[in-house]
Order: sequence, then C-alpha cells, then structure tokens
Amino acid sequence: MDKWTRHHLLDLQGLSKEELETILETAKSFKEVSAREVKKVPALRGKTIVSLFLEPSTRTRGSFELAAKRLSADTINMSGTGSSLSKGETIVDMAKNIEAMNVDLIIVRHADAGVPYMLANNLKAAVVNAGDGCRSHPTQALLDMFTIKEKKGRIDGLKIAIVGDILHSRVARSNIVGLTRLGAEVTVCGPSTLIPIGIEKMGVKVSYDLNETIKDKDVVMLLRLQKERQHENYLPSIREYAIQFGVNKNRLRHAKKDVMIMHPGPTNRGVELSAEVADGEYSVILDQVTNGVAVRMAVLYLTLGTKEAED
Amino acid sequence: MDKWTRHHLLDLQGLSKEELETILETAKSFKEVSAREVKKVPALRGKTIVSLFLEPSTRTRGSFELAAKRLSADTINMSGTGSSLSKGETIVDMAKNIEAMNVDLIIVRHADAGVPYMLANNLKAAVVNAGDGCRSHPTQALLDMFTIKEKKGRIDGLKIAIVGDILHSRVARSNIVGLTRLGAEVTVCGPSTLIPIGIEKMGVKVSYDLNETIKDKDVVMLLRLQKERQHENYLPSIREYAIQFGVNKNRLRHAKKDVMIMHPGPTNRGVELSAEVADGEYSVILDQVTNGVAVRMAVLYLTLGTKEAED
Amino acid sequence: MDKWTRHHLLDLQGLSKEELETILETAKSFKEVSAREVKKVPALRGKTIVSLFLEPSTRTRGSFELAAKRLSADTINMSGTGSSLSKGETIVDMAKNIEAMNVDLIIVRHADAGVPYMLANNLKAAVVNAGDGCRSHPTQALLDMFTIKEKKGRIDGLKIAIVGDILHSRVARSNIVGLTRLGAEVTVCGPSTLIPIGIEKMGVKVSYDLNETIKDKDVVMLLRLQKERQHENYLPSIREYAIQFGVNKNRLRHAKKDVMIMHPGPTNRGVELSAEVADGEYSVILDQVTNGVAVRMAVLYLTLGTKEAED
Repeated sequence: MDKWTRHHLLDLQGLSKEELETILETAKSFKEVSAREVKKVPALRGKTIVSLFLEPSTRTRGSFELAAKRLSADTINMSGTGSSLSKGETIVDMAKNIEAMNVDLIIVRHADAGVPYMLANNLKAAVVNAGDGCRSHPTQALLDMFTIKEKKGRIDGLKIAIVGDILHSRVARSNIVGLTRLGAEVTVCGPSTLIPIGIEKMGVKVSYDLNETIKDKDVVMLLRLQKERQHENYLPSIREYAIQFGVNKNRLRHAKKDVMIMHPGPTNRGVELSAEVADGEYSVILDQVTNGVAVRMAVLYLTLGTKEAED
Repeated sequence: MDKWTRHHLLDLQGLSKEELETILETAKSFKEVSAREVKKVPALRGKTIVSLFLEPSTRTRGSFELAAKRLSADTINMSGTGSSLSKGETIVDMAKNIEAMNVDLIIVRHADAGVPYMLANNLKAAVVNAGDGCRSHPTQALLDMFTIKEKKGRIDGLKIAIVGDILHSRVARSNIVGLTRLGAEVTVCGPSTLIPIGIEKMGVKVSYDLNETIKDKDVVMLLRLQKERQHENYLPSIREYAIQFGVNKNRLRHAKKDVMIMHPGPTNRGVELSAEVADGEYSVILDQVTNGVAVRMAVLYLTLGTKEAED
Repeated sequence: MDKWTRHHLLDLQGLSKEELETILETAKSFKEVSAREVKKVPALRGKTIVSLFLEPSTRTRGSFELAAKRLSADTINMSGTGSSLSKGETIVDMAKNIEAMNVDLIIVRHADAGVPYMLANNLKAAVVNAGDGCRSHPTQALLDMFTIKEKKGRIDGLKIAIVGDILHSRVARSNIVGLTRLGAEVTVCGPSTLIPIGIEKMGVKVSYDLNETIKDKDVVMLLRLQKERQHENYLPSIREYAIQFGVNKNRLRHAKKDVMIMHPGPTNRGVELSAEVADGEYSVILDQVTNGVAVRMAVLYLTLGTKEAED
C-alpha cells in the first residue's frame, strides 16, 4: 500500500487486508515512542482533536487523549451524559457545532449503534469510532490484532476463540471482522442465549462448550460480562456463567501450552477469569492496554493525514 | 486606538467604539490562525488560564479552552456545580485561592448576575465574563458583531432584530449594548411577557409582531427559548411561541432577500427556527461558532497583555 | 544530600531531615518559575502524569495539574467517583491498567487510608499521595513547612499549635511528622473527643484550651472542621466549637505579636476563624496555596528523576 486514504475510522468492515496491515505497521513505530524517555513527537502539532464520549468511559478516553498528546495535538474533552441528545438530528447538530471550531478530528463513543456513521456523513472533520452501541469498536479490535501479531508473530492461520456475551459485544463484532480478514480461524463460544442466530455468516464457528473449544486454540479472548444480563434473563446466574465460561487454572489444563488469554478490560475477576489467570503467565491483558495507545496514535495520525475528499 | 488597556472583560457597557473595533480587528487576525494547518501561535506561552464555569456549559467552555490552547497558554478546568458556593463571599474566597496559584486569567460563568464584577474587584488576575445570570455575555455579543461585520461589511446603519425571550437573555443585553454603540438600529421582538418594561431606554425599538418586524431587517438574531418558561407562565405554550415567533421558510418570504439569520445555539429546531432555515442559505449559525474561537483568542490576548494597574 | 533516590511520595514518615530539606530547597527554585512572565520550564517534557482523584477535589487536583503543566509534562485526568471500586484488589487492577499506558507518575487521592501504599507496592510508575483517608497528606504538610520556613526563616525550635479535629485529619498527621522531624515543638489542641488517645507518642503536647495554648506559639495552624462531625456526636454544636476553638481578633490578643495563622483551606469562615483573621495581617493562607504549586513541582520533579529500582 502506498498511501493511507481513509478520512474516518468507523469500523473494520470496509478495510482491506493491506489497510489493516498499514495500521498495525504504523502502530509498531509509534509503540516505540511511548517507550522513550521523552514520549512525544511533533507529528500532529497544531491539530485539534475533540473527545465526544456520550457513554461513560475513563480508560478508552484516557488512552485516546494520551495518544493525541504524545503526537502533540491539542485535545479538548467535550464528553457528557448526552441526556439532551435524544434525537439523532440533535447529535449531528452538536457535532457540526464542535466541527465549526476548526476541529480536525472527533473521537466519538455513543450508546446507539450508527452514531459515528451519521457524524461522518455530515462532517468534514475526521471521525474515529470509539465504540457505538453493540456495533463496532474498531480501535479495540486493532489493538487486539496488534497484540496477537506481536506475541504470536502472525494472525493468519491462528485458531482464536472469542468467549462470552457475543450478542451484545461490539468488541466481538469488530474482532471477528478484522481477525477473519487477516486469515484467523475464529470460534465464538458462550451461552446459547448470548450468541446471535446466524453469526456463522460472519465466517466463524459456534460452540457452547468452552472445555471442548479451548483445546486447540492459540488465543482465547474473553469478553466482559455485563452483570445486568442476569436480570434481563439471558443467564440463570453469574455464578453459573463463571462455572461454564470462566477461565481458571483448572480449565487452562485443557488448553495448549502456549495459549494466550486476552480481555478488553475492565475484568470481572471471578467471573470471566480468575485473578490467578488474569495476572498469570498466559495473560496479555496489560499488553493490550499498552498497545491501545500505539494503535490509537496510528489511527489519529493516518486519518489526520488525509483530506475529506479522499475518502 | 494605540494600545489596549483594560485588564478585565466584564461587559460591553463601558467599552468605546474604538475598543470594540480593536477587539474585532484583533479577532480577524486570529481567525486566520484557526484556518492554518498548524493552528497554534506562541503568543500566550507560559500563561495560566483557568475555566471556572459554575453553570453547566460544554460549548462555550470548549470554545474558550480551544482559544487558550491555540495561543499556547496552559489551561486548567476548575468548573463544578458550585453547590457549595451559596454566599458571595465564598466565591470570592474560592477565586482568590485559584489566583494564588499564579493564575493569569480566570474565565467565569455563573448563574448569578454580578459574580464576574465581584471577582474583578477582588483579584489581580484578569477576569473574563463567560455569562453571568441574565446580565452579560460579552464574548457572545462580540462574536455576533464580528460575524455581522464579516458578512455585511459593516454594522453602522444596519437594521437588526433580536427575537425571543429578551427578558432573561444576557445575549440580548450584551448585543444591544454593542450593536447600538457601533451604530446599528436594533429592534427587540417577542411576546410582551418576555420583553422588559422600559427596554427602549437602551436605545432599541420594541415590536410584538415578527411578520411586521422582519420586513426591513438586515439581520434577524433569534434567542434560545428555555422550555421551562412555559411552566413559569410566561408563555401559553411552546407551540404557540413557535407559530408567532419561530422563523420558517414561509415567514422568510416577508424578509429582505439578503436577510441573515443568527442564533447563539444550541437551537431548538422547530421552536425558534425550522431545521430548513437553520441549515439554509440565510443561516450563519456555524460561522458564529467559528468566529467565537477567534473573538475569544482576541479577548484572552488583549486582556493578558495588560497589568492590573492599567485598568 | 547528593541525590534524591525515592521513587514514591507516600508519607513523610520515612523521610530524613535531609530529604525534607531537599524537597523544600527544590521547591524554592521552582517557586521562582511561577513568578516569571513565562511560567514554564521543559524539565518533564514528554513525561505522562495521571491524576487519579477518587475523592472529590478541585483545588488540590488543580494545584498538581498546574505543577505538572509548568514542568511541561503531559497530564491526563482520570478522576471519578470510584463507585465501582469497592474492593482493594480492583483499584490496584485499575491503576495497573493506567500504568500500562506508559504512565510515569500517578497522583492518587482516596477516601481509604493505605491506597497509595497498595499502588506503590504494585506499580513501577511513581506514586504521589494526594491524601488518603485520615492518614497522610504529605504535599500539604510540605507546603505548610515551606511556608513556615519562608516566613519565619526556620522551623527548628519554633512553637507550633495544630488546632481542631486532629482525630480525622491527615493534614495534622503529616504535619506532626514533618514538623517534629525538623525540630519544631508541636502542640495539638482541640475538643477532647477529636484528639486521638495516645497522640503524645508522636512527640507532641496536648491541650484542650486554646486561650492557654495560643500564648507562646509562633505558628497556629487551624484545621478545617467537617460539619458532619456534629451529627456524629463528636461536638455539641458548631457554634460551641467556634466559641472555644475559633480564632477571631479577640482571641488573637492573647497571642504573640508575630503569630502566623495557617489553614489548609477551604475555610469555614465564622467557624475555625473569623473573616477578619482569614484576610488579616497574620494570615498566610494564600501564601500556602501559592507555595503548594512550588512544592508539588518539586515532588513531581524529584520522584520522576528516579527509577523504580532505586526506592
């Protein structure tokens, strides 16, 4: 690939294998910046980046803001509860107002699927999706892919399980798209109530039995369980979920010797995985967080290097 | 005018025609900065600017913070709900504490009229009023004046209508002062319950009929209607207000061909104006937002170029 | 002392006289930076500092953030209510996630005593305690010590009273440790219900009579009274407290001519001291605030100059 041409990052759906690899390569060089004594490069000096998180988040917002600051951009946080934003029209209006302050890029998170797309359709500023409803979370998937490639040397041909509440997970959806495009063999595994019917069409296998699934996997990616799912009758109990789909040392005995355990955080220790596993030798959870900053630096850098017309 | 000498910007009342024009001229040169690839000048490097917004605001605070950052100042956000600030004495105490951290300028917004004046009387730091109760909102008026001058080439001699809840509007008050000083002929228009008795003393005409008023106006400035006014018995209903004072395409047929529609935002689409008009050819709403950053850069730059003694 | 070797600042307990003096000396040179036209030095350029305030605070957080910005560090605010942080394990987990973003230093405030120590035990990043429960508030004590030394020329041999709710005060605890180490003679004074039994073991005298105590003191340090103490049955009434332990002009007649009145802020005027005294000639309350930034610059600078292994 010669040159990055996409103005927005909304999902991984439309990205080619080459484009995904360009992001991962760019992130690699930025990871080195965060390891320096002086963690700062002037790449985006004088650019204005706005965080518009209309769903509560501290970590992802912090990761994006650090990424922006290490590239020397100016950042403004305009996050809020979004309570006054009931109608779609209104959030576009709000974003146009922000853009009018000569803002170059808006990082948006919203509880409703589709909001980043609406903004991208209506703005000249670049839009980066930091999570929309149950739909997409492209930078999370990219940091997961970066971490897998860094640790395993490749993604192509790996057997990867994504375990948990697939139905409500934007992390799962974005990872399925990205990982399958780079040649991984993905299996989703969880309670039948939490696996969407027809998910096989996304090119994945389905399993309801983690003991069976874990046997031949190179990577096991656990999803955060929202505790309210129990009250929504998706689950008999959290305890039951932990017994069937939680990963503890015992369950890891069935796994490959070099299995890699991932989790997008924050973890429910004792539910998706035991503390022992979270802090143990197979876990790369903190590497994922470190790589998140590098991947976000790459995304901000690449999208801001384009003009609207190029998309 | 040779040199700016005011240490604070509290309202437009005491400003001469020359001073108003100096701000607008300075803003013009700063507008160009925000249009550059690298939107940053070192003018206020090493200065400390604090946002003290004790009334909720995201947009105005963001506009000021962007202005400060593009001038390379350090900014700290100390905004809060102000619930612990019931007595005037206490907010002065709080501001003195902030000032003691060698802060150069405090941007203050407060639900009570007069708070910025109290701070200015008690502090050596510069004070910029970002809105106090129903009293003043000088940077909003300045950005409106800047936008009118930019689009119409002049303010002197223009016929301008300010439409809506004049009674509770600091935006209206500051605009009346500034626009009349620069020679505009201002008419206020709204329901009789929402026009203060004796407003003519400010040098404006009064109208209760928008169809009549709109005919010869060069500029129509709509004010945001607080929906709670209905429950306070100022209005029979929001719908009734929209019918009588909302601007839609139909009503614009009575207007001049080059009428300019303004609104300080955020708009209630369907109330003060229709979506069609808000996004249409006569609207300069987003220009107002863009110019807000330039005007605020000018205000921060000019006031910080003075010493307390000069005021 | 040749070189600073401590990676964290958790309390003043373990610090030697020489170490305390090194901080105060370093703060002196940084105080000069905040008095310049351009209040900024490049000392910590490219370093990342995170504010993690899990107890509400605007002033102390602002003071730390200003200190970091004047040293050119990048700062991220990840403060929150901490409601989701009920278990100790979880806050370590959260801090490890923050650290994984290649964060150099975490400033932490928490309602539970001991949290900064837990973080320091589990992180490679430097940890600075900005107040933990009733236990320690080392930078407040350091700024108090700095102010005393600046105004009185020395600490050794001074007679200092700390007045108020000693039982619940981290400010009192840290000051007792620091001031006695530098040779001051410290007396704690307050209602018997609010003075912990056995406090004499910390090397202080105890008094229940402020009129008697105030007579020979060089410095009187007042503590903020939490008004909820009344409902917790520690006090008959706030009014009663003000009569017995509040400092007004009348009570100052018993004091030395050059007595110095301190208060960590925010003050309850009319309770711990009268407005007249707070704003009067003996008060150094605003000097304390100014010196807070200088002391925090020194602490950030010194701790960031070390590596984890050195501690």
